[in-house]
Amino acid sequence: MDIPLISHVGIAVKDFEKALKKYSLLIGDDNPAIHDVADQKVKAAIFKGGCCGGGARIELVAPSTDDSPIAKFLDSKGEGLHHVCIYVEDIEKKLAELKAEGVRLIDEVPRIGADGNKIAFIQPKDMNGVLIELEEFPKPTL
Amino acid sequence: MDIPLISHVGIAVKDFEKALKKYSLLIGDDNPAIHDVADQKVKAAIFKGGCCGGGARIELVAPSTDDSPIAKFLDSKGEGLHHVCIYVEDIEKKLAELKAEGVRLIDEVPRIGADGNKIAFIQPKDMNGVLIELEEFPKPTL
Repeated sequence: MDIPLISHVGIAVKDFEKALKKYSLLIGDDNPAIHDVADQKVKAAIFKGGCCGGGARIELVAPSTDDSPIAKFLDSKGEGLHHVCIYVEDIEKKLAELKAEGVRLIDEVPRIGADGNKIAFIQPKDMNGVLIELEEFPKPTL
Repeated sequence: MDIPLISHVGIAVKDFEKALKKYSLLIGDDNPAIHDVADQKVKAAIFKGGCCGGGARIELVAPSTDDSPIAKFLDSKGEGLHHVCIYVEDIEKKLAELKAEGVRLIDEVPRIGADGNKIAFIQPKDMNGVLIELEEFPKPTL
């Protein structure tokens, strides 16, 4: 199966509306999808990738509560690139491979992401400071 | 013209060989393209996107000299996500639009990137802390 490498790149922002205006201009898309992701306590704007079944997206994420993980990130690091999400064919297999090489996992067991796909985060300290999200690429439905 | 949104995501690393091994495992690609980009004083490993005419790539970049811009980034911020490169149809037009909105540009005039396409960087302070690279999507040859 030939799958895309990047699902999306997440950018942490403080002022959602201002950032939305700026990135709409940058990307040339005035109509990103807006989501309130309650269980992650974030508001997100998703700019579609333009090809390749959607293509790699850019997601602006802002905290919707003071105890949101994004609020903590903004407090410690400020605005900027937050995470990159890559597609894998078999998420359990990939997590096992990484663990066998000593890579620490935030999610030992995948959970279901906003899109309904299995996702898992990896410890950034073991991936050169990058917060990697794995997402299982949807299998074709028969 | 329907073009992809993301060209590539750059990750700054210190130990090129170690990072290469780890990201090869993560991505499931033991054969990324390796480039010495002399004018930017970096060594790069490029993991292809897997679809969409190449798709959005992941690039590991390590300094090849002590005065490399990546060496300065590593000194001040440490390893991690460094930049995201997005495709635009007309780079001069996009730079003019951004400038008109008060966004500061690192490159007022595009230069030619490693792939032979026109590129330009935008001031991260004006893009929510994200170093954005613009790349003009190659026009179809007749």
